[in-house]
Amino acid sequence: MRKIHVIGIGAGDPDQLTLQAVKALRSTDVFFVLDKGEVKSDLTRLRRDMLEAHMPEGASYRIVEARDPERDRGAGGAAYSPAVGDWRSARAGIYERLIAEELGEGQSGAFLVWGDPALYDSTIAILDEVLERGGVAFEYDVVPGISSVAALVARHRTGLNRVARPVQITTGRRLSEGFPEGVDDVVVMLDAHQAFRKYADQDIDIYWGAYIGTPDEILVSGPIAEAAPRIERLRAEARERKGWIMDTYLLRRHPGER
Amino acid sequence: MRKIHVIGIGAGDPDQLTLQAVKALRSTDVFFVLDKGEVKSDLTRLRRDMLEAHMPEGASYRIVEARDPERDRGAGGAAYSPAVGDWRSARAGIYERLIAEELGEGQSGAFLVWGDPALYDSTIAILDEVLERGGVAFEYDVVPGISSVAALVARHRTGLNRVARPVQITTGRRLSEGFPEGVDDVVVMLDAHQAFRKYADQDIDIYWGAYIGTPDEILVSGPIAEAAPRIERLRAEARERKGWIMDTYLLRRHPGER
Repeated sequence: MRKIHVIGIGAGDPDQLTLQAVKALRSTDVFFVLDKGEVKSDLTRLRRDMLEAHMPEGASYRIVEARDPERDRGAGGAAYSPAVGDWRSARAGIYERLIAEELGEGQSGAFLVWGDPALYDSTIAILDEVLERGGVAFEYDVVPGISSVAALVARHRTGLNRVARPVQITTGRRLSEGFPEGVDDVVVMLDAHQAFRKYADQDIDIYWGAYIGTPDEILVSGPIAEAAPRIERLRAEARERKGWIMDTYLLRRHPGER
Repeated sequence: MRKIHVIGIGAGDPDQLTLQAVKALRSTDVFFVLDKGEVKSDLTRLRRDMLEAHMPEGASYRIVEARDPERDRGAGGAAYSPAVGDWRSARAGIYERLIAEELGEGQSGAFLVWGDPALYDSTIAILDEVLERGGVAFEYDVVPGISSVAALVARHRTGLNRVARPVQITTGRRLSEGFPEGVDDVVVMLDAHQAFRKYADQDIDIYWGAYIGTPDEILVSGPIAEAAPRIERLRAEARERKGWIMDTYLLRRHPGER
C-alpha cells in the first residue's frame, strides 16, 4: 500500500518542525513540491532547505516538482466557491497523477504544508477527493504543525483568546464585510487588501507579523490607529523587495474599556 | 539577567515537541512544575517523562514543584472574571517567589505548557503581571506548541475551517448559551458539561477526542445525534478510570445542506 504523509512544517523557522514531522520526513521516499510559480520560488527553496537540514547525510529520497494551478487570490479570499471547486478538481488530477506515477507500491510520499495542514490549506480535502475518484489507492496521515497564528502570537508574547472568551479565525475578505459577531479577538489570514484599515478609528489593538520565524520577520503591534500606517508602509516595502508576502494578524477589540 | 521560557509541549505525544522546544528545554536550568492536585498528577508525571525523554544523558537541571491554587472550574469556563482575577494574583505571587528564590542571576527557568501557550492558558498573562509588580526582573520568550485543537483535527484528518470560511474557538460555557453567530465551524475547549448535547437535533457533525496523542487516546466522529450518546458513555468511563479527562471537539454545522 502506498502511504502519504501530510506534514505541517511550521511558519518558516526550520526549528518549528516537531520531532514527529522530522520522523515523517525521514520515512519518506518521494517529496511532492507544488510550485505556484516564480513569485513563490522562495517558498520552494525554503522547503528544499528544510529537507537538507533534517534528512540524514546520505539519505535516499526524491523531490518531484509540479506546477500548482494558479487560483485568483486577488479577490481576497471568500465567495469564490465555484472557482475553488474547479481549482480543487484540477489539483486533484495533478495529485492523483503524481501519486500513481511517481510513487511505487509500498513507498511513502509526502506533501509539506506551511503552518498547520488544518488551517486554510486544501491538501487534506484534495487527497480525500483523489481517494473518492478511486483511480489510485493509498493511506494517509496528517502531522500537525505550528500554524502561522501560533507563531505570530508567540512572537508577540500574547494569547489568542482572553480569559474564558472566544477567538475567531477568518479571512481578509470576511473582515472587510464587517467585524465578526460575538467576538472581540479575531485572527485574519489571506488578507491581500489590509482589511484592518477599515477599523482604524476603533479601540482595537493589532498584532501583525510577516515572514514569521524567518530572517525577514517583521512584527508590529499597538493601537490600530497608530500601527496601521506603519504596517501599510512596511508591508508595501517588503512585498516590493521580496516579490511576495505572507502575513497574519490578530485584532483585539476593547469594547467598553475606552 | 534571569531568563524564562514558556514552552508549548504539545497535546500529549512527546514527539509533538518542536525542535525549538527541545532546544529551549536543553538550555533550561530550572523547570517549574505547577501541580493542580492529585487528580492531575498524571499530567505532572507526563511532563517529567517528557524531560527524561528529551534532556541529554547527564544533563544538569532541577525540577521545582509548587501547588497551583485551585480554581473552581465546575462552573464551566466563563463569566468568572473576578474569581479569575484573584486566582491570577495568587498565581502571580507564587510565580514571583519561584523565580526570585529558585532561579539564580544568569540562570534560565521554564514553564512547560500543555498544547500551545496562546490558547486558554494563563502563563503569559501571569508573567506579565509578575513583571509589572517589579519585585523580580527577567526576560522571557514563548515557544509555540501544537495545540490540542491542531492535534484533534490532524487525528481526524479534517480541516479546522472550510474553504474561505471562518472558525471560532470557544468554551463549553459559551456554547451552552447558544451556537456562535456567523460561524458554522466551532471548536470547543474547557467543556466539563458536554454542551454539544444541546445541539443533538441539528445537522451538525462532531469530531471529538480525549487524551489526544497519548496511549489513552479516544476519537469519535459523525453526525452529532449518533455520536453524542457514544461520547457521553466513553467520556464517563474514561473519566472514572483515569480520574481526569482532557477533551476537545469540533462542531461542523451544515446549514442548508440537509
